[in-house]
Amino acid sequence: MSTDLCVHLLPQLVDPAELVGRTVVVIDVLRATTTVCHALAAGATSVVPCLEIDEARTAAAKLGGIVMLGGERQGRRIEGFDLGNSPTEYTAASVGGRTVVFTTTNGTRTLRHAEQASEILLGGFVNLSAVVERLSRAAAISLLCAGTNGEITAEDSLFAGAVVDGLERRGRQLCALSNDEARLARDAWRTVAMSGRPLAAVLRECQGGRNLIAEGFDADIDTAAVVDHLTIVPRYDVASGGITSS
Amino acid sequence: MSTDLCVHLLPQLVDPAELVGRTVVVIDVLRATTTVCHALAAGATSVVPCLEIDEARTAAAKLGGIVMLGGERQGRRIEGFDLGNSPTEYTAASVGGRTVVFTTTNGTRTLRHAEQASEILLGGFVNLSAVVERLSRAAAISLLCAGTNGEITAEDSLFAGAVVDGLERRGRQLCALSNDEARLARDAWRTVAMSGRPLAAVLRECQGGRNLIAEGFDADIDTAAVVDHLTIVPRYDVASGGITSS
Repeated sequence: MSTDLCVHLLPQLVDPAELVGRTVVVIDVLRATTTVCHALAAGATSVVPCLEIDEARTAAAKLGGIVMLGGERQGRRIEGFDLGNSPTEYTAASVGGRTVVFTTTNGTRTLRHAEQASEILLGGFVNLSAVVERLSRAAAISLLCAGTNGEITAEDSLFAGAVVDGLERRGRQLCALSNDEARLARDAWRTVAMSGRPLAAVLRECQGGRNLIAEGFDADIDTAAVVDHLTIVPRYDVASGGITSS
Repeated sequence: MSTDLCVHLLPQLVDPAELVGRTVVVIDVLRATTTVCHALAAGATSVVPCLEIDEARTAAAKLGGIVMLGGERQGRRIEGFDLGNSPTEYTAASVGGRTVVFTTTNGTRTLRHAEQASEILLGGFVNLSAVVERLSRAAAISLLCAGTNGEITAEDSLFAGAVVDGLERRGRQLCALSNDEARLARDAWRTVAMSGRPLAAVLRECQGGRNLIAEGFDADIDTAAVVDHLTIVPRYDVASGGITSS
């Protein structure tokens, strides 16, 4: 089976209508999609992404029960929220069995951008192989990088490239790269993979990595760089508004 | 000396005001910047870029004398124009000693986008080393890819990557890559360079290459893939409105 495979290095480089009928992987490696993977792996029942802080507070109030509020603005925990956007904050003790209402700057916006897709998955290096495995059953794939405030970031683009590379290696030789962003991301990833450098060192040079270091979240880069640490693939269900493990 | 080096994979990914005070290289490998290199190398005295067809006709009429009208729409020569956008059309016989008034879809638009820069150069694989040499004296560099109708193209991005790689190899170890697009372009280029594949074969897979093949301009890809065929660096002087050999 031939697969139609696109990469978009930023949400604004693809019209939402072009994602109709496709499997979309939303990518915000540092840190939203990595954090959602950790939250669900730690036993959170669902992660509810919200665009605005007020929207998150309202959603949490409506859900009632034991809900955790998580997320960031300018990288930092939001005032009155239970958790920030560091993946390691999301443990069995903090989120096990609970719903997390979550708002981040770029990740949430990108999820919303993908809402017309037929299926929306979340990926980061922590679940790379699981994402590739899951995609090996899809016919039309769009890898959608969040970037940072409208700027292309290498960490998201490199992960997209790793997925393209992974699909090609897993025997999907008939993978039709439907745009040049897919070629560029794959080839940039191959240089990084061939270099033998630790992924964490590469991520530290990327825009997102440098931002995190400046904000004192250096350790989150190491967490995000543990390839295949987890086997779950978070899936965003637009109708219910929740992201669950799939 | 440390250099501030940025890549923009599309004009719309950078605000024109951000180019103030910088040396900008406009890149439209298939085919506008390659063609301008050929035109000047063939002895054209100046190439005058125009955004619209009517603007080109008016400019040609105003210039009088022996002016050649060149350019394309949807890849093809414009009705009533002397030349299309194939680099090999621009010979000493056709353009030697003459002014060329030139309009292309993406290349001209990108030149206009860069008009606030302190210096505007044009690059393609045909003058790669000359561009790198010229840039080795610049303090702030932006490599501006034209893309095709708002889509990122690999041929332009790979050339940008080859320039970044070339600057780093020429001892500009202090080159500060000021955005992640510079890292991605460089690393994508390195995979292509390491593969040992002929550049023309790589360009045939890119969006611009596939468009040209579909339009019957396959030979132009081979012309654009002759690395360092020329030693000139075209320079666009906004005040005079002309591109000359520099």
